[in-house]
Amino acid sequence: MSHLVALSAALGPDATLISDSDITASYSRDHAPFAVSAPPFAVLLAKNAQEISKALIFANENKIPVVTRGAGSGLSGGANSDAQSLVISLEKMNRILSLDAANQIARVQAGVINIDLDTAAKEHGLAYLPDPASREWSTLGGNAATNAGGMCCVKYGVTTAHVRALQVVLATGEIIELGSATKKSVTTYDLVHLFVGSEGTLGIITELTLNLEIRPAPPATLIATFPSVTKAAAAAAVLLKYRPSMLEIVDQTTLKAVQAWHPLGFEVAGSVLLMQLDENHSLCEAALETCKKFDLIDGVYSDDPADAADLIRVRKLAYPALERMGATLLDDVALPITKIAEFVEKVEALSRETNLVIGIFGHAGDGNMHPTIVHDHGDTAAADRAKQAFARIVEIAQSLGGTASGEHGIGSIKQGFVANEISPKVAALQREVKKTFDPNGILNPGKKI
Amino acid sequence: MSHLVALSAALGPDATLISDSDITASYSRDHAPFAVSAPPFAVLLAKNAQEISKALIFANENKIPVVTRGAGSGLSGGANSDAQSLVISLEKMNRILSLDAANQIARVQAGVINIDLDTAAKEHGLAYLPDPASREWSTLGGNAATNAGGMCCVKYGVTTAHVRALQVVLATGEIIELGSATKKSVTTYDLVHLFVGSEGTLGIITELTLNLEIRPAPPATLIATFPSVTKAAAAAAVLLKYRPSMLEIVDQTTLKAVQAWHPLGFEVAGSVLLMQLDENHSLCEAALETCKKFDLIDGVYSDDPADAADLIRVRKLAYPALERMGATLLDDVALPITKIAEFVEKVEALSRETNLVIGIFGHAGDGNMHPTIVHDHGDTAAADRAKQAFARIVEIAQSLGGTASGEHGIGSIKQGFVANEISPKVAALQREVKKTFDPNGILNPGKKI
Ligand SMILES: Cc1cc2nc3c(=O)[nH]c(=O)nc-3n(C[C@H](O)[C@H](O)[C@H](O)COP(=O)(O)OP(=O)(O)OC[C@H]3O[C@@H](n4cnc5c(N)ncnc54)[C@H](O)[C@@H]3O)c2cc1C
Ligand SMILES: Cc1cc2nc3c(=O)[nH]c(=O)nc-3n(C[C@H](O)[C@H](O)[C@H](O)COP(=O)(O)OP(=O)(O)OC[C@H]3O[C@@H](n4cnc5c(N)ncnc54)[C@H](O)[C@@H]3O)c2cc1C
Repeated sequence: MSHLVALSAALGPDATLISDSDITASYSRDHAPFAVSAPPFAVLLAKNAQEISKALIFANENKIPVVTRGAGSGLSGGANSDAQSLVISLEKMNRILSLDAANQIARVQAGVINIDLDTAAKEHGLAYLPDPASREWSTLGGNAATNAGGMCCVKYGVTTAHVRALQVVLATGEIIELGSATKKSVTTYDLVHLFVGSEGTLGIITELTLNLEIRPAPPATLIATFPSVTKAAAAAAVLLKYRPSMLEIVDQTTLKAVQAWHPLGFEVAGSVLLMQLDENHSLCEAALETCKKFDLIDGVYSDDPADAADLIRVRKLAYPALERMGATLLDDVALPITKIAEFVEKVEALSRETNLVIGIFGHAGDGNMHPTIVHDHGDTAAADRAKQAFARIVEIAQSLGGTASGEHGIGSIKQGFVANEISPKVAALQREVKKTFDPNGILNPGKKI
Repeated sequence: MSHLVALSAALGPDATLISDSDITASYSRDHAPFAVSAPPFAVLLAKNAQEISKALIFANENKIPVVTRGAGSGLSGGANSDAQSLVISLEKMNRILSLDAANQIARVQAGVINIDLDTAAKEHGLAYLPDPASREWSTLGGNAATNAGGMCCVKYGVTTAHVRALQVVLATGEIIELGSATKKSVTTYDLVHLFVGSEGTLGIITELTLNLEIRPAPPATLIATFPSVTKAAAAAAVLLKYRPSMLEIVDQTTLKAVQAWHPLGFEVAGSVLLMQLDENHSLCEAALETCKKFDLIDGVYSDDPADAADLIRVRKLAYPALERMGATLLDDVALPITKIAEFVEKVEALSRETNLVIGIFGHAGDGNMHPTIVHDHGDTAAADRAKQAFARIVEIAQSLGGTASGEHGIGSIKQGFVANEISPKVAALQREVKKTFDPNGILNPGKKI
């Protein structure tokens, strides 16, 4: 009996198990350009944890690799399958199970789209704060599995800071509850946050209890241009003292790409900083004074929400503007904030050396940078150079005390860099932890560790 | 050869290994009143990780229980030893290794006292925020091992939110580095936060990389009296909308205890709320208006720092005032904030039923309550009733969706309650995680899990 037939029998007639290769192909990969993938033998559009449990018991017995999928918006090949895999998609498990405004928590199924929770919270004066740029289509389960960041995380922390409790289906099929719905608890080991960022390798997250916060006031937005990234980055380190709810940087290459598409409304400079303050709007003037110490070219601020959208458009368009120019490879590294300038200079040198366009932007306040390599579609030599540059960028970051991934994860494209940051003993501990939760290694094999 | 002689030989002449029973006795227990303990056979006042590594290799080979000790300020018997144990004290490892103001991080040895780091940070306009009431003598290693909370954690999060990286000595003697000094990283599994709250059972923390934050402005402080805890707790849930940097509750029993010692400066009421706002002082008036909806008896606020100290004195004196009345048993549970009132009513009923004084105060904004049972010193019947009441309080919290410990840990006094909150499978996973890090079970056996 083929796996497909046997799995279908194990799941029963109510399960939505897809094997049509036209459809399975669309579940075979995420948004990482050069990660390998092949259509899985089947896709389960799971309806509930019980169904996932049945599928995992079957997969575990038959040693079938299982790839969990949220929205497939990942940028590290984490949700990529091969031909032997079963993909389990959480997209149908998209119900907000409860929203307890007084206790500021929500219980959601893992397939709920990030923005849908925030929209529901808004009605109560609350917010779900972690705001990846993909929040309009990425899932809360995927956000937790990657520990997604976003623009306001400089002030409010990345996903992990907002997760209280999880329901998880283990590789062996047990459905377990981890954590506590209370704001504080030290009753058990912290297994909840072990699952956050585990990229589908330790278990399948089926439900999450998430923090909702008092909805911040509409922010004041400040935009400032500088002659160089060096100056802008130095200013950013000092601007942290205003406790910004956003602090982003964009380099000249990226500014030009945006300008070529949509007029910026200001002169292209060496670099731009964008800052938002959701409390103490009145500090904008002081912040602008601070910028002057770093050769500020020009700066404006406004607390009109319409202006804000206008001012931050350059950051929102950064990646799509680069994508318009050709094939892109988006990197993701994190550094000490004081090393951003040196990092950018080295990446600029790499750009000249390899004759590749590399636009750089990122979450300056978190030291989390996204150099994006652009080359002509179909130019395979350039594509090879781009892959090499992608690796060099990670190594540059590591040489400056940085880390291989700030928020996109290791997935299937960055395992080669992990050993530069951890000892063999820590690597062995990771493998042992993996084995504790997934003894047969069926969950997302070849990813993360 | 006795263990002592062999260990001393293994450590070499530079090690400070104490076996004088007068001294070892003072290292045998923390501040939990009824937890069992006995002087250990030796105490190592460790100087560095290498020395700890040697001691652990010896202990692991000879299956000697090892109890790690910070300041011994714990309230759950977590640092208690028995006669077979080696106690390793970190008190001499008290150096701040580096303070990087621009990147807002510090690297410290685990024996650094919490307040010493904050004092050093203050010079740079920064703060180490987690503020357990024991911060003037408890260690940062102990704070991490218990995931300590404090008054300002309602806004800034408990210890775990402030830990980026750790150096740990494993039971088998390896010295490992976990985490990244960068603000964001998803390069590995999150083993750092697995160690936070692990109460000395997974490894010995020797160094920590901690977040420093922009030092908050001096707060405005508001004090409000209510006819009952029910009303005060209901008000607290609503006051969260002002994003307080402190939100504490004190019940009538505790108010009377304080009043009997130091005049309160206001009428003893059913309950008191204390709130601080470190941003937007101007919201105090609105907060007071909010309180009126909950039968406010009286309320004042001030943003004069001298007044602040005066206003919050009642909370600072809560525990010592109860201690003056007799022997105390301080409990620590966390609840959904909307359940505080019901919890307090049930604990008050328990107080009447058992004829025990139970003062209740706590971190209302976090739902973290500290009912404190008072009985006459030397009254063994009352002491027994107190122990039973201590257990009943935990069960009441759990029955309301709460958890056995909010911040003091499980230690050696609360293991009996953990099974009410987790399934046998999760308990088994905890044991397996423990085994991965401590195969022979030498680290703090009989604690936490
Ligand atoms: C245009 C664009 C902008 C982006 N902006 C950001 C950004 O600002 N910040 C940021 O951090 N990321 C960003 N990303 C990356 C991506 O959106 C995030 O990683 C997101 O969290 C992935 O969610 P997803 O539901 O799409 O997960 P997927 O891509 O489907 O999966 C991601 C990983 O999580 C695992 N996984 C998914 N669901 C579960 C589950 N329920 N249980 C266990 N494992 C699971 C998968 O196996 C995979 O390893 C962006 C991506 C794009 C394309
Ligand atoms: C008056 C008073 C007020 C208090 N107020 C608070 C409060 O507001 N909030 C709060 O959370 N707690 C409070 N506590 C409890 C206590 O101070 C905290 O738990 C504190 O974090 C313990 O730190 P310590 O250095 O004294 O650790 P210890 O008591 O020595 O040890 C605590 C636990 O951590 C382990 N441990 C210690 N150091 C290490 C290390 N380096 N590596 C691995 N494991 C280690 C020990 O084995 C033990 O299990 C209070 C205690 C008292 C007496």
